[in-house]
Amino acid sequence: TILSLNQYNIVYNVLSFVIATMLAGFIGFLLIRSSLPAKHRNALTLGTLVMAIADYHYFRIFNSFTAAYHIVGGKYVPTGIPFNEAYRYVDWLLTVPLLLAELVTVLELTPKESKVLISKLVVASSLMIALGYPGQISPVHSTARTLWAAASSVFFVYILYVLFVEIQKSLDKQPEGVRPLMFTLRALLLLSWGFYPIAYILPSFVGGATGIVVSQVGYSIADVVAKPLFTYFVYKVSKLKAEVEE
Amino acid sequence: TILSLNQYNIVYNVLSFVIATMLAGFIGFLLIRSSLPAKHRNALTLGTLVMAIADYHYFRIFNSFTAAYHIVGGKYVPTGIPFNEAYRYVDWLLTVPLLLAELVTVLELTPKESKVLISKLVVASSLMIALGYPGQISPVHSTARTLWAAASSVFFVYILYVLFVEIQKSLDKQPEGVRPLMFTLRALLLLSWGFYPIAYILPSFVGGATGIVVSQVGYSIADVVAKPLFTYFVYKVSKLKAEVEE
Ligand SMILES: CC1=C(/C=C/C(C)=C/C=C/C(C)=C/C=O)C(C)(C)CCC1
Ligand SMILES: CC1=C(/C=C/C(C)=C/C=C/C(C)=C/C=O)C(C)(C)CCC1
Repeated sequence: TILSLNQYNIVYNVLSFVIATMLAGFIGFLLIRSSLPAKHRNALTLGTLVMAIADYHYFRIFNSFTAAYHIVGGKYVPTGIPFNEAYRYVDWLLTVPLLLAELVTVLELTPKESKVLISKLVVASSLMIALGYPGQISPVHSTARTLWAAASSVFFVYILYVLFVEIQKSLDKQPEGVRPLMFTLRALLLLSWGFYPIAYILPSFVGGATGIVVSQVGYSIADVVAKPLFTYFVYKVSKLKAEVEE
Repeated sequence: TILSLNQYNIVYNVLSFVIATMLAGFIGFLLIRSSLPAKHRNALTLGTLVMAIADYHYFRIFNSFTAAYHIVGGKYVPTGIPFNEAYRYVDWLLTVPLLLAELVTVLELTPKESKVLISKLVVASSLMIALGYPGQISPVHSTARTLWAAASSVFFVYILYVLFVEIQKSLDKQPEGVRPLMFTLRALLLLSWGFYPIAYILPSFVGGATGIVVSQVGYSIADVVAKPLFTYFVYKVSKLKAEVEE
């Protein structure tokens, strides 16, 4: 698919924006982490790792994107080197369990309950991602793409259901003042997670070059909300808990 | 050997996955290290070094792999630049002694006993790796490959035997609650170490391109279990010991 100058630049600039954002998140979380009492640092430790992993993958995505097109007569024409969609999926395979573990650190569960919940979520999220990938690389209007997405969505719905219930249950156990933050956290989570299947499905409706652009931009925005913004709110919860305990 | 798009992509994506994992391990171990009392930090200090060394080598392996093939008519054809298998062996030469020293820190030995044990293990593991390498670069169905592997295996078996006995002996000296973790650690060790000779030998059974893929993927999985996962469990043991002492 040939991209216009504008289409190429949008993707290029958005990917570069995300590289900078993840880098800033990495440094920022590293620095504020040490301002928390040791016991409340776990969420930010995990968040810092997520930023590093994501930044690595966005560099790779960016380089893969620029290698996939070259300019010919004022348009961006495929070079033949395929754009590697796998980076996103490998990134999620690593970052989604870490982000879920981040959330679990603020749910006021016993160590045993945490372990059980994390295990369930890690298995379900790995299946969601692994089943989504073959669909991602199938042709846009193929049945295969729809079937893999459907299989992936089973686990997607399961995870959101489990998280919704667990966040709800945790509300009563949270210290005074944390509740509104937990609602924000839940909203952020549902919103950002919902964005991924939308970015996946959009190319089926807006075809060709526009499809490539909206889906790359969609995934990128979702990643900014689901990773740094989400971690920032988990940090605010951790901080409030630390203050209440004092 | 010519690789199909899929075969190439599997190796490519797995190598990239390991780069990201080692990076995350490096940052994570560095951060949680300082949460332990000074006396119990040694294992994570060693683990952090292992992650850095491995990440460096995986970058090199990745670059060597991409330089070794280029796309010609929809297939990945050798460029003539040989894929350098030595990176793995150099990596092991450095990381295996460090990982063994990591294990020794949690075996409740006297400084003198630790020293003797580490010396034995370092010599044996260096021989295991050094003797394995000439076999690794010999043709797949050659007698040389089998003979070098056999020589290497002598030390492999010796190391596993020594470790098995030492972990067993340490069980009685471990504080309450550490035992189950020591069993997990031993299982992880045997499992991951067992993977390396399997990844070495597989190309003799599944030849050609598939052989290359399974052996690279096998080594990569083994490295993720033997390095970050193993270090994480050694850290859990160290942490439990620190808590018991308090
Ligand atoms: C349901 C569904 C998908 C969902 C993906 C999600 C929900 C990914 C979440 C990623 C996160 C949270 C990353 C944060 O780092 C896919 C795989 C696109 C395939 C189509 C069906
Ligand atoms: C027995 C045997 C081998 C064993 C290798 C091992 C056991 C490597 C372990 C590496 C580790 C633990 C690395 C961690 O960083 C070789 C050399 C493949 C050659 C064939 C025979």
